[in-house]
Amino acid sequence: MSTYSLGIDIGGTTTKFGIVNSKGEIIAQDRIPTNEHEVVEDFIEDLYVKLMPMIDKVGGTKNFIGIGVGAPNGNIYSGTIEYAPNLKWKGIIPIADLMEKKFGLPTKLTNDANAAAVGEMMYGCTKNMKHFITITLGTGVGSGIVIDGKIVVGHDGFAGELGHTIIRPGGRAHKSTGMLGSLEAYASATGVRETAIELLTQHPEQESLLRNYTINELTSEAVFDCAMQGDTIANHIFEFTGQILGESLANFVMFSSPEAIVLFGGLTKAGALLLNPTRRHMEANLLPIFQNKVKLLFSELKEADAAILGASALIW
Amino acid sequence: MSTYSLGIDIGGTTTKFGIVNSKGEIIAQDRIPTNEHEVVEDFIEDLYVKLMPMIDKVGGTKNFIGIGVGAPNGNIYSGTIEYAPNLKWKGIIPIADLMEKKFGLPTKLTNDANAAAVGEMMYGCTKNMKHFITITLGTGVGSGIVIDGKIVVGHDGFAGELGHTIIRPGGRAHKSTGMLGSLEAYASATGVRETAIELLTQHPEQESLLRNYTINELTSEAVFDCAMQGDTIANHIFEFTGQILGESLANFVMFSSPEAIVLFGGLTKAGALLLNPTRRHMEANLLPIFQNKVKLLFSELKEADAAILGASALIW
Repeated sequence: MSTYSLGIDIGGTTTKFGIVNSKGEIIAQDRIPTNEHEVVEDFIEDLYVKLMPMIDKVGGTKNFIGIGVGAPNGNIYSGTIEYAPNLKWKGIIPIADLMEKKFGLPTKLTNDANAAAVGEMMYGCTKNMKHFITITLGTGVGSGIVIDGKIVVGHDGFAGELGHTIIRPGGRAHKSTGMLGSLEAYASATGVRETAIELLTQHPEQESLLRNYTINELTSEAVFDCAMQGDTIANHIFEFTGQILGESLANFVMFSSPEAIVLFGGLTKAGALLLNPTRRHMEANLLPIFQNKVKLLFSELKEADAAILGASALIW
Repeated sequence: MSTYSLGIDIGGTTTKFGIVNSKGEIIAQDRIPTNEHEVVEDFIEDLYVKLMPMIDKVGGTKNFIGIGVGAPNGNIYSGTIEYAPNLKWKGIIPIADLMEKKFGLPTKLTNDANAAAVGEMMYGCTKNMKHFITITLGTGVGSGIVIDGKIVVGHDGFAGELGHTIIRPGGRAHKSTGMLGSLEAYASATGVRETAIELLTQHPEQESLLRNYTINELTSEAVFDCAMQGDTIANHIFEFTGQILGESLANFVMFSSPEAIVLFGGLTKAGALLLNPTRRHMEANLLPIFQNKVKLLFSELKEADAAILGASALIW
């Protein structure tokens, strides 16, 4: 009897994977670096070597219903990763096919952010919701949109790229897409760092604890530490980040009217420092019929867990 | 046998209604003013007086399967119109219930823009599409979003208010919502008129045919006429309107990845003058995976027909 599934979360830097039982518990997990493999076949070989002993421990592949994979630009229709800017493997990578052949198990692929949303829906704080949006505030900004209990993938499988929506037309250039004023250029760990550098440069007269950090040390964590110590510029950075995020969330709410928006990822460690301005600016930019309705939540799942659980759930 | 349905489109100024046969043909139609009735019961009485002779002509209500109504802020879940800013009837209006009692026919309600999208899906240029967005560029900007062949209504029935999404944060104030920089403040007939007044005021030195119009005559039609005669400012107005609209459409595409966006309404009479800059700015603000994929179409249905057909289709 097939009682397990494999969940694999391919990130730009690290690939995390786990064996999930039918209760949605990760009973074993590990990770490998993603971008050390010039060709995808070597990456899959590496995964295989790590995973087979774990699989054998629970009785071999015959006990598995299949594999679910979340990956950047992963397409649920075709099972291919297409032109992912953060991965070494260029062009169209038939990852689902390659995995099926290697492991002899049916494999489903989706976008990594969508996989996290599925994990949240099955095991997290939106367990009983049919309409919600997840936003991952990490190095970049990822998103998963759920409408009527289903992930929105659009006509071609690529829907839900909310991090790349434009919120400041003509604004800050995105380092890798080149687009001007996208959400990701501001409301990500990278964006917070850039806002810090901008403000420190534009206001040389203003004292700040942030000036004690070298340019390399000036991370979103450093900004958080300084803000907690009452530093004015550091607090202003979170206020500004929350404003941009809140305005974007208001636009998303007026699109799909979700019951909740769930925030994941590194930046959420800032807690109320980020949540308060985000909520305030979201509400201020909503039509009255949407105001004071949308729950703004932090995920209760560990980010890695959500992605592994979500990926594994694709196959159930 | 029930072979007809009633489609009713309640607009801010005019209510249009028609009898639709099972082939999706409007076999009779008429209209009454919407905002002459202080209480909604008088409005329904008026509708009844106009409709009953039309209904009797095709054999009476026994031949009708039901009534579909499209209305601003119409909620498909509750059958109520809720706090519609452009209607005289304030608060929550149980229009579906009132119609059912008056006509003795089952009644379904939805948002007017959603009804138009249903009409387009059943009888228009998106007949075979499961993922598209309709945008009505009239006095205001309405929208209907279709994902997986279903209208997106969200957790509370109010999804799809794309005209109120913010595209110029801190920008032009919307006359009735007070919101700053929303799409509707620019890409509507009202918005085009305001852009004209702004540009003529800001550039007093620049000659323009538009200066021959009084402030009251300065409509979007006047701007179109002048643009067609080669007027620089008038052409710039459409370029600017298309830029704002195109940027907004790019954001919508990255949300739901539709196969097409269908434009309706008065402003579409401008044709290529509006379509070209809109398409250019949409493409320029899309991630590469979305570029050159989305069809940008003008509706093939008359606007009134789409709303009546769409409303009537709710009940089939």
